[in-house]
Amino acid sequence: MSSETVLRERARDFFAGLQDQICAELERLDGKASFREDLWQREGGGGGRTRVIEDGSVFEKAGVNFSEVHGQLDEAFANRMPIGDGTQFFACGISLVLHPLNPFVPTVHANFRYLERGSSGWFGGGTDLTPYYPFIEDAVHFHQTLKQACDRFDPSYYPRFKKACDEYFFIKHRDEARGVGGIFFDYLTDERIDSAKQPGRQGIEFIFQFVKEIGLAFLPAYLPIAERRKDEAYTEAERAFQMIRRGRYVEFNLVYDRGTHFGLETRGRTESILMSLPPVVRWVYDYQPEPGTREAAARDFFHPRDWLGTE
Amino acid sequence: MSSETVLRERARDFFAGLQDQICAELERLDGKASFREDLWQREGGGGGRTRVIEDGSVFEKAGVNFSEVHGQLDEAFANRMPIGDGTQFFACGISLVLHPLNPFVPTVHANFRYLERGSSGWFGGGTDLTPYYPFIEDAVHFHQTLKQACDRFDPSYYPRFKKACDEYFFIKHRDEARGVGGIFFDYLTDERIDSAKQPGRQGIEFIFQFVKEIGLAFLPAYLPIAERRKDEAYTEAERAFQMIRRGRYVEFNLVYDRGTHFGLETRGRTESILMSLPPVVRWVYDYQPEPGTREAAARDFFHPRDWLGTE
Repeated sequence: MSSETVLRERARDFFAGLQDQICAELERLDGKASFREDLWQREGGGGGRTRVIEDGSVFEKAGVNFSEVHGQLDEAFANRMPIGDGTQFFACGISLVLHPLNPFVPTVHANFRYLERGSSGWFGGGTDLTPYYPFIEDAVHFHQTLKQACDRFDPSYYPRFKKACDEYFFIKHRDEARGVGGIFFDYLTDERIDSAKQPGRQGIEFIFQFVKEIGLAFLPAYLPIAERRKDEAYTEAERAFQMIRRGRYVEFNLVYDRGTHFGLETRGRTESILMSLPPVVRWVYDYQPEPGTREAAARDFFHPRDWLGTE
Repeated sequence: MSSETVLRERARDFFAGLQDQICAELERLDGKASFREDLWQREGGGGGRTRVIEDGSVFEKAGVNFSEVHGQLDEAFANRMPIGDGTQFFACGISLVLHPLNPFVPTVHANFRYLERGSSGWFGGGTDLTPYYPFIEDAVHFHQTLKQACDRFDPSYYPRFKKACDEYFFIKHRDEARGVGGIFFDYLTDERIDSAKQPGRQGIEFIFQFVKEIGLAFLPAYLPIAERRKDEAYTEAERAFQMIRRGRYVEFNLVYDRGTHFGLETRGRTESILMSLPPVVRWVYDYQPEPGTREAAARDFFHPRDWLGTE
């Protein structure tokens, strides 16, 4: 058994276990709903385990997907990847999007994955928060938790991956961030690490430890926010605002998101890929919130910002 | 004044007049709503006249946009166009999407445009119908009206453009057509016409006459359908089905539609481009209609079909 096979298997086992842990905690928080599970096979190789909640008491829709797929990439598509060779690929990972019912609870996304193309392997992923209403302490808590996890590995990671997140989750045609960001990284592999300088950093194994740390930091980053907002009373107008803002989420995912495009291009299971789309969405022509309202104030949140005062 | 300038102006005047005519008829049909008009300028050159109805009695959302824009295309984007040279462009046209409130009234899209890139000019456009419930007579009427207009110009047009429409408005990741189709054509220019064979066919002037004919056929193709369905009673379940189906419309427009991508890439006015998105949309995970229902029967409608028995 080659060492690549071993890493594949260890990554897969970690992601599958993380799915179990996250789903258990989300069910506990929701209190009412439990995940429906769909096992699926991909025609070209591999498959997955999609878990979805709909109409929960906290989560109007929540999808937590584990998948492990392999096979051949379309050549033009493979050539757009900056790492690896050829068209043979392997990918495993976990991807989740939670859409709460209460407009004061933020939507959140996380994705952690291990990929191989030809002879190269790398990790990618991240997590980002999309609030509807502007609670600074929520954004600070989310970023603080991620920074602490990053700092245990490399002090350059948080600022670097936070910036990458701001750049990635940006809706160009709106000139707006998708939310308050978080961290995002891609193509992390041993090649990218200057391991000579720091003994003990052993290439891709170091990256795998880092990805595990961030994966395990997801619940502490998100759950306390959901806990403290989930029972706040809201009005129909606040719910309508949430539905309008969800439209931006759809626009980002369908127009720009590489993960969505990767899934659709490799003919993944459409329902598992598009489980990220919100349950109910409104598009109001040229919507403009009244000046002075919280909805107007929310706009300032949708631009990259130094949440921790460390930049 | 060069002949190109003259065609630009005549095309622009026709499209602007068609916008007026269509808006007047839609207001008459709606009976309650009137169009809100927004004039806008594009930073790189040109501008437009967006007209929108929201919360009408027939139309939950209806956008009819006229625009005339010009300037420089992004080079990579320009190079993907099969006609013309360089990056200088001019485009004028009309684009409309009507989203009725009643789930028995189909959504409809039409777009007619004249474009120039460098020294080449061409027409493009078409119209397609997206019903929620499967009324065969509606699809037949729509196609029959378009076929009659096409046949006045060339008997090969309807079959050719109907096929192009089926191919274009196809949602690959769903393996589903967007609706029942219609006609679609692009890059129609004098170069594409074998005018030697048929005297009286004078290159791009012939095409312009054809586009006018189809533009004027839009109301006769759509209005009778809306008239006969708009007062039918419907249930909440039928309305929910409409919202789920609208999700497919969003997926097509944001993932595949060239017009939407052209608009966003050339930094057109986002609200005018995305006025095509439906007012309220639902995404239900792995939605499957009950066997034997009209919702299940609707599925057969979302595959290309020979509506007129002429193929």
